[in-house]
Amino acid sequence: MSGKNEKPSGEGVTAKKAENFSEWYTQAVIKSEFVDYTAVSGCLAFRPSGYFAWESVQKATDALFREEGIMNVYFPLFIPEKFLNKEKEHVKGFNPEVAWVTHTGDSKLDERLAVRPTSETIMYDSFSRWVRSWRDLPMRYNQWNSVVRWEFAHPTPLLRSREFLWNEGHTVFATKQEADAERDVILGIYIKILKEYLALPGVVGKKTDSEKFAGAEATYSIEHILPGGGSVQGPDFHSDGQRFAKAFEIKFLDKNGKMEYAYQNTFAISTRELGVMIAMHGDDKGIILPPNVAMTQVVIIPIYNNDNRDEVLKVARKLAEKLASAFRVYLDDNDAYSPGWKFHAWELKGVPVRVEIGERDIKADKAVVSRRDTGTKHDIKLKELPEEIARLLKEINESLYHKALKFLEASTHHVSTWAELKKVIGENGGFAQGAWCGSAKCEAKIKSELKAKITNMPFDMQDRAEGRKCVICSENDARYIVNIAKSY
Amino acid sequence: MSGKNEKPSGEGVTAKKAENFSEWYTQAVIKSEFVDYTAVSGCLAFRPSGYFAWESVQKATDALFREEGIMNVYFPLFIPEKFLNKEKEHVKGFNPEVAWVTHTGDSKLDERLAVRPTSETIMYDSFSRWVRSWRDLPMRYNQWNSVVRWEFAHPTPLLRSREFLWNEGHTVFATKQEADAERDVILGIYIKILKEYLALPGVVGKKTDSEKFAGAEATYSIEHILPGGGSVQGPDFHSDGQRFAKAFEIKFLDKNGKMEYAYQNTFAISTRELGVMIAMHGDDKGIILPPNVAMTQVVIIPIYNNDNRDEVLKVARKLAEKLASAFRVYLDDNDAYSPGWKFHAWELKGVPVRVEIGERDIKADKAVVSRRDTGTKHDIKLKELPEEIARLLKEINESLYHKALKFLEASTHHVSTWAELKKVIGENGGFAQGAWCGSAKCEAKIKSELKAKITNMPFDMQDRAEGRKCVICSENDARYIVNIAKSY
Repeated sequence: MSGKNEKPSGEGVTAKKAENFSEWYTQAVIKSEFVDYTAVSGCLAFRPSGYFAWESVQKATDALFREEGIMNVYFPLFIPEKFLNKEKEHVKGFNPEVAWVTHTGDSKLDERLAVRPTSETIMYDSFSRWVRSWRDLPMRYNQWNSVVRWEFAHPTPLLRSREFLWNEGHTVFATKQEADAERDVILGIYIKILKEYLALPGVVGKKTDSEKFAGAEATYSIEHILPGGGSVQGPDFHSDGQRFAKAFEIKFLDKNGKMEYAYQNTFAISTRELGVMIAMHGDDKGIILPPNVAMTQVVIIPIYNNDNRDEVLKVARKLAEKLASAFRVYLDDNDAYSPGWKFHAWELKGVPVRVEIGERDIKADKAVVSRRDTGTKHDIKLKELPEEIARLLKEINESLYHKALKFLEASTHHVSTWAELKKVIGENGGFAQGAWCGSAKCEAKIKSELKAKITNMPFDMQDRAEGRKCVICSENDARYIVNIAKSY
Repeated sequence: MSGKNEKPSGEGVTAKKAENFSEWYTQAVIKSEFVDYTAVSGCLAFRPSGYFAWESVQKATDALFREEGIMNVYFPLFIPEKFLNKEKEHVKGFNPEVAWVTHTGDSKLDERLAVRPTSETIMYDSFSRWVRSWRDLPMRYNQWNSVVRWEFAHPTPLLRSREFLWNEGHTVFATKQEADAERDVILGIYIKILKEYLALPGVVGKKTDSEKFAGAEATYSIEHILPGGGSVQGPDFHSDGQRFAKAFEIKFLDKNGKMEYAYQNTFAISTRELGVMIAMHGDDKGIILPPNVAMTQVVIIPIYNNDNRDEVLKVARKLAEKLASAFRVYLDDNDAYSPGWKFHAWELKGVPVRVEIGERDIKADKAVVSRRDTGTKHDIKLKELPEEIARLLKEINESLYHKALKFLEASTHHVSTWAELKKVIGENGGFAQGAWCGSAKCEAKIKSELKAKITNMPFDMQDRAEGRKCVICSENDARYIVNIAKSY
């Protein structure tokens, strides 16, 4: 049985999701006791329910990494300033956001230490000593840690945090071909995790050169649209080519006895994804947790009065014990609150399935089972409960995913002219999907005139660029199909 | 099959453990590729084998915490300076060791941020908002993270690190009685983990007032003696009483409607324990990993020449596949090295069991199985291998534990006079166990004259103090039996 201490406070969300998404989101994520603000702006406390969701994502992803032969390591939190300066693009990308340690105790450090914004530089210094021969390759390492990027003037819980939790995969290969082959494997793992654990779809594609990771040769991403219409970047994968290998001297003796620079990739999924999950699935009653990341999957609410309390609780306890062998169950036997109060409180916290059981139910050998996502209620015979709940939990995940997928499709607007593009970005929000000539000038115009950007170039759309004109300049032949959106 | 990339470098340990323990230790822990130095002094890179060992400890401990009803959370890496100042003793204990963030990007922060040396202050600020009523208690939270204490002028890998990984348990109770009852549960969990995963015994007892945790009312610890004779503090448990609750206003409405301050505990196990494990079990050939924390439990070394290579490798591969369903197995089929070279390389890395198989073995339907800890070799029929290896792995853990326990007993010297105490501390090293009157003056004399300290007051010895005189002043009646040692 889980959620021993997960007692709801019951203070509800007052904002409406459809009317004021941002206000609704922050109320929902905080009042559901998923995360909380702390005294350090932009740095959150993950409460048990929020951290459980992250641990679920972490464990499932980690198991898939391990199957692939990727091994976990841990590197220091601190990075010497001179390391960050070694790769030109990398330092330009991160320096403005770095938290600097300058003193320890009362002593000033000789060299400032960066609190890791990402670990390429400290890891690759070690890799340069560890990689000697082709026999040492591939070397596929990963770490789970927290990183700090002091980049948001107005942080939002999970979606725009200054400290966040993530995985950072760092892999080294002897050939470009092997390195490139890893891309679809890793993106496939992330797509699977998003779908099966967070019930989230996304648009998979390549970033433009101006939007790629600082130091990478190419970046691939999974992009989301939030209910408010803004886009959020999900998990990503970077092909680093030999750039870092050359900056950090990661060389190896190949099979022919020749020294060669290695090829590298990096990839990540972060706690921002939990924010996307909350934003996507929640409603005016609170958050809705997909069953595979819910600390409590089933809450049992006994319905009793002073006369039948002991009898009802006895049956409810037996039921809770029975269900706990297959699910994460919490029995709310708190006498201080009414069943109605408890219904609201657990809806706020997003528990996927509720089981009510009272005297009349017991007599009829049944219970009332409701779904958090749809609100539908059914009488279920007690002996059929385990099977029915297992079925329901599966169905809830699928149903949340398909609802989110329909929303994503409805939020994708095909545009053929600048006027259409401008209208979508200005009015509807969501993705404007159109053709692009590939010029930096046209990309810059999107930024300056629409305050939007190319989120990525969807993999499955690229065969449609041929024969079209660029939607921005309307002069040049199109080379890519791109999604354009305002960032959340 | 694990250890896909765990290819040995084979550069052996040159120092002798019995002659120069410190030099042996650092060579063993680095050359075995367990951890590595980085450019940041005192901050390590945990390589796959080292991180696997930590993850094994973490997962096993976490499962026991969860059974107890303790839930995981995550709190910010940064702590505002004013928070650290709230509890007088706490700030005095930690301020000299704190790494301070003063700038982000090019901007100076209004208030310095401490990189967490421990999380009491940032957590308890949140707890003061989360705890309202007796219904919210007990609240038993834990986090796994890294902490930074800039305390060692001469860091040693794992044993004296400036950044280390640990758990920090933080629990809140309504009554002193409930809080106190948690002590033996948590110490019991740590003792179990030490024994079953790290094959380590330790001395469980209470710290003196001058050695307790900064801010606690009482500290309990598990103490080790290293082969060099120095002591190392293992996992600990702190009874905080109401001290932090009063500093951070953690109050609740009790069942009678009265506001009361809560009672708190904190507890931790850290990666220092991996250092104790390496120090205790290793030998002149390298490190010895207890089977439950070994990334590779069984290494298979095929013995072949040009004529029978394919045949031998075919059988070895089938064997590896079969064993991999029950154990973490690595087949070393690298043609570039001789079997003898591989034996040494895998001994250095501490893999508990080695299986050799060559043409003659195949004909006799057997393999040669050796133990890393004792070096003993036996012929085992192929079909009996899974059962025999399972038995051996269990036996190796028990055998390592009992060897370490015998060493601990042999390193504990009963002393009745100041001269005896002085002799033990000066010559033998290890624990000098004697009676103490409890005075601060006598405790201070140990520090000033012997450069040693009271490690703790062993629980199971306290009934022996009666009727004895203090071993330090030889005047006062003894109140406690204490262990005295020099720190490693």
